[in-house]
Amino acid sequence: MKRISQTTLLLAGLGAIAIASGCKAGKTGQAATDEDAAKKVYVAPGKHDELYMFASGGFSGQIAAYGIPSGRLLKVIPVFSQNPENGYGYSEETKPMLNTSHGFVPWDDTHHPELSKTNGEDDGRWLFINGNNTPRIARLNLATFKTEEILELPNVAGNHASPFCTENTEYIVGNTRFSVPLDGDKDVSIGDFKKKFKGAATFIKVDKNTGRMNIAFQLIVPGFNYDLAHAGKGPSHDWIFFTCYNTEQANTLLEVNASQRDKDFIMAVNWKKAEELVAQGKGRKVPAKYAHNLYNERTHSATSAMENDVTMLDVKDYPGLIYYIPCPKSPHGVDVEPNGEYFVASGKLAAVIPVFSFKKMLGAIDQKQFEGDFDGIPVLKYNTVLEGEVQKPGLGPLHTEFDGKGYAYTSMFVSSEIVKWKVDTREIIDRIPTYYSIGHLSVPGGDSRHPYGKYVIALNKITKDRYLPTGPELTQSAQLIDITGNKMKLLLDFPTIGEPHYAQTIPAEKIEKNSVKFFKLEENDNPYAAKSEKEARVVRKGNRVDVYMTAIRSHLAPDNIEGINQGDDVYVHVTNLEQDWDVPHGFAIKGSNNSELLIMPGETATLKWAPDRTGIFPFYCTDFCSALHQEMSGYFRVSPKGSNVPLTFHLGENLAAR
Amino acid sequence: MKRISQTTLLLAGLGAIAIASGCKAGKTGQAATDEDAAKKVYVAPGKHDELYMFASGGFSGQIAAYGIPSGRLLKVIPVFSQNPENGYGYSEETKPMLNTSHGFVPWDDTHHPELSKTNGEDDGRWLFINGNNTPRIARLNLATFKTEEILELPNVAGNHASPFCTENTEYIVGNTRFSVPLDGDKDVSIGDFKKKFKGAATFIKVDKNTGRMNIAFQLIVPGFNYDLAHAGKGPSHDWIFFTCYNTEQANTLLEVNASQRDKDFIMAVNWKKAEELVAQGKGRKVPAKYAHNLYNERTHSATSAMENDVTMLDVKDYPGLIYYIPCPKSPHGVDVEPNGEYFVASGKLAAVIPVFSFKKMLGAIDQKQFEGDFDGIPVLKYNTVLEGEVQKPGLGPLHTEFDGKGYAYTSMFVSSEIVKWKVDTREIIDRIPTYYSIGHLSVPGGDSRHPYGKYVIALNKITKDRYLPTGPELTQSAQLIDITGNKMKLLLDFPTIGEPHYAQTIPAEKIEKNSVKFFKLEENDNPYAAKSEKEARVVRKGNRVDVYMTAIRSHLAPDNIEGINQGDDVYVHVTNLEQDWDVPHGFAIKGSNNSELLIMPGETATLKWAPDRTGIFPFYCTDFCSALHQEMSGYFRVSPKGSNVPLTFHLGENLAAR
Repeated sequence: MKRISQTTLLLAGLGAIAIASGCKAGKTGQAATDEDAAKKVYVAPGKHDELYMFASGGFSGQIAAYGIPSGRLLKVIPVFSQNPENGYGYSEETKPMLNTSHGFVPWDDTHHPELSKTNGEDDGRWLFINGNNTPRIARLNLATFKTEEILELPNVAGNHASPFCTENTEYIVGNTRFSVPLDGDKDVSIGDFKKKFKGAATFIKVDKNTGRMNIAFQLIVPGFNYDLAHAGKGPSHDWIFFTCYNTEQANTLLEVNASQRDKDFIMAVNWKKAEELVAQGKGRKVPAKYAHNLYNERTHSATSAMENDVTMLDVKDYPGLIYYIPCPKSPHGVDVEPNGEYFVASGKLAAVIPVFSFKKMLGAIDQKQFEGDFDGIPVLKYNTVLEGEVQKPGLGPLHTEFDGKGYAYTSMFVSSEIVKWKVDTREIIDRIPTYYSIGHLSVPGGDSRHPYGKYVIALNKITKDRYLPTGPELTQSAQLIDITGNKMKLLLDFPTIGEPHYAQTIPAEKIEKNSVKFFKLEENDNPYAAKSEKEARVVRKGNRVDVYMTAIRSHLAPDNIEGINQGDDVYVHVTNLEQDWDVPHGFAIKGSNNSELLIMPGETATLKWAPDRTGIFPFYCTDFCSALHQEMSGYFRVSPKGSNVPLTFHLGENLAAR
Repeated sequence: MKRISQTTLLLAGLGAIAIASGCKAGKTGQAATDEDAAKKVYVAPGKHDELYMFASGGFSGQIAAYGIPSGRLLKVIPVFSQNPENGYGYSEETKPMLNTSHGFVPWDDTHHPELSKTNGEDDGRWLFINGNNTPRIARLNLATFKTEEILELPNVAGNHASPFCTENTEYIVGNTRFSVPLDGDKDVSIGDFKKKFKGAATFIKVDKNTGRMNIAFQLIVPGFNYDLAHAGKGPSHDWIFFTCYNTEQANTLLEVNASQRDKDFIMAVNWKKAEELVAQGKGRKVPAKYAHNLYNERTHSATSAMENDVTMLDVKDYPGLIYYIPCPKSPHGVDVEPNGEYFVASGKLAAVIPVFSFKKMLGAIDQKQFEGDFDGIPVLKYNTVLEGEVQKPGLGPLHTEFDGKGYAYTSMFVSSEIVKWKVDTREIIDRIPTYYSIGHLSVPGGDSRHPYGKYVIALNKITKDRYLPTGPELTQSAQLIDITGNKMKLLLDFPTIGEPHYAQTIPAEKIEKNSVKFFKLEENDNPYAAKSEKEARVVRKGNRVDVYMTAIRSHLAPDNIEGINQGDDVYVHVTNLEQDWDVPHGFAIKGSNNSELLIMPGETATLKWAPDRTGIFPFYCTDFCSALHQEMSGYFRVSPKGSNVPLTFHLGENLAAR
């Protein structure tokens, strides 16, 4: 227990110093004058922001889109968590999105949004995001801001090193944070950790046209904790780099036991070679049950299918596929500069930031400059791959992005600051305090071949006194910093939804141009759509009642529905007949034991309701849609089980029983 | 059907004109210069906002706290909807908060936040909010920003005219938007609407010290749709006013059928008299099942109890208790100016804004100036109560607040603008366009005896092109307008969570001073708390397994828990041992089919998990708490049902089976 206390005290101490010293003026980064900063972040009413920032919600399980430079929250896009606000994960159409190999899961933990890339540049088509807890990757369509696909990853627990993509989005990857036995659900002792717990680096093929994901193969790798990854660019196109911590392979008290070695590893994977091996029929198909959920834009509905196997290659069996590069201590980020020659690792317990050379790495491989091997995998000599180290960068380096002008920006969690340094000389140019405990940071396009630069955004974990207090539970926060000059200038603090774990930031015009304003009613292929009021009706089959309902300003049709019995399963399918931008309707039933629906123009959504008692149940539009919105309502009557009240409903002037 | 089309077209047309004309320069309101506005809304990093704005989330079911003037979203406080982000409505401790007389309901529709008042002024103690769908009222504690109480209202559907409070928060009220039969769950034909469907105006007593709510009585009122309410102040202290629409008592196609009469009613209720009658034993106890949920700050747990009856007074039987005042057409807001003499109604289909005099109302009652009665209730003559009308205010007046300097601000939904007028002369002073379709508005303290003024905030329903597009589903939005000068000046557009249906805005110092920073561990009375690592343990009783777990930077104790079997009910009780501000920990189990927990310092929270398959299940801290946060994890092993794997877990250096 002694060592725990020491480590805990050390780190708690470091954190406290950092937070205290963050308030001092001694740092070299400077605050912009208030007036200058105010002008720079102000987006006048009706004007648009210059950039979108897509931040993971961390423990919220969602994605949030912000406008930059204003820091305004434009939208929370539900991904892995139920969202009562619009019925995501509650409506019949969206429930399948949250299905997994072990049933419905209402939540996840999102960490690393990744914009799809073409030629190493953000192309504005899709956004990928990992689910950390139940290992999954989601794909969002940036034309509709909807989650279109969720793919579960087998053999993995804690899909943290994910979903980083290769230069043309050929693949996105996942990897395990918590190594687990690969033989699925078998009962294995935790004591067998070193023998039986493994990593599985997952390579997911992305269809160029549709964005559709499919697991191409998994690489069986040692039972470390895989943290982050980044693919090469240009010269390093064929490679992808993963950070590994806990190369000690400890399985208890990791705080101490996974912090023993001075160096852990960067794992360099030649994905082109892996692809070739699989094309040659190498590897073996292994049984593995995992869910693959797809949302169909035309039916406005999701389906969930189960996959049954995956192709696995044990990296030990394929020399030249992966190499380890020693990396000081417990590395978090591994980041590739825009030219694709240098890659930078950030060891959260390290005193330096190593900058590795891709050219040197190839040379070292060529000349077999190995210091040994780990589990049959060659470990390159640190110095043969190293280009140089950034000295005295601060405490707790985590993540580096680039501005395309030759500078790198590294976040320092423990000393709560961003350090700007020159990529080729590794000289420190500037440092600026962050408030407090910065994790990742985001330079617009900062992981691409052509960064947009202009800002760096600090994604902080602690806010304490930065905002008006909100009791014990406080917002987390981002900070917008101007990097157009030699010195960084802090412009704005803005609060975030959930944990702004990581964010990617992209010029608005790349997304605006493709934005869909409403769904075309004539393209609505939902089998339960009522595309005009004439089609509105109520149909009973046994104890299932389908209500085909339409919504248009300012009435729901039909209203006054009688002949529903206790114990029926009632499915209310609401089609929004509007064909204009920003005319949603909502729908809720008193006592439905369910959420509401928000239905966009042209869309159909279904609320399931199993009335368990008799009575009168009003329903209404929940979205203030017009001057007569309050009048947009109706009643259900629920009669006792077996009652003979005929099925009737009111539609315009006719009360018809069909 | 003809009339529907006409009304629909009329209103759609009006809306379109308003939105189009909002963009023209012809209005007299003026935009601040960008530079001036930027300075006014900019809150420099580390500086605090001047005001809290508490906005309902509308269809999100929550409350959101914003900083004003920055418009920054400080916190979403879960109230009526499940919140996977922090486990509200998923943890064992919070699930009872969402219980109702008919079981667990995961969502509601919040409309009108109401700050508690002392002497007619916002006192910063509590915030009340109505649930519209399953009729409920919640009370939030503004020291902790937690929902502490939820009370269901029987005999009501669509609790819209709620939760407005009297001058010293003696009572808060609710009333039905969708009249329903009062005899509970009986099977009643919708055709019996006029005969059997009633309103129930609910008066809830609030305990002065604890804020605890209890239904004092319900008034049985005609089957109208009750929309909004406001209590008197000063001279009108004893009265409360409700708006009623659909005095036609239509029950189908309300869009047309509830818009027939030129005047509906303001219902004036003498609540002091009602209180006296109940004290005299008048009224009758009526069976009525409704849930009353309480959150205990010491156990960090909620309980849900069921109430069984309510005292009801049929207003017909008690002359002098209520009066109707005719009010042009389909009134929405009824608002009482700071001196308590004038009350203003906003008829959404009306061409004028009537200003009524309380003194004249008393005179008219005294002199029996009735134009007749409705269902036995006297209807006062419009002109005997009217002080005067604001002429040509715009289209679709909805809601009025006051600045304490003699001016009123009324929102105009259809013409998308705010109109400033002088209360005593009813002269229009200024008008400013809003973007688009403003519903309610909020002047800080604008419904109190002493408004703070300075700003009016427009709470808009439509944004269309005001922000970067986010596909078909767009944010709703608020606008901050400077009212310190004679002319209103638009300063800022800021997006909101859900629908910012209504908001109350209060100087920050009234809340900051009482804010709780963390929960004291020694006051933690949760029966499953482990208050030190020594108390961490795993206990099996039959197939129930209780894990008493502690969280402190950077480990969870115990880890490596074996001896769990498929089919067990596992309750993981996590106590956060930290005793400092802003050091939350999170907790999640892979494959738990549940959300995560966020646990504040000193708090205990419980995740229930029923493992349905064997295997290894990592658990970890989900909130980036320290440099070794990634190491804060452990494993569960789940063995087959009936397995003999002994119950073991790892705690510091000792592997102990207890």
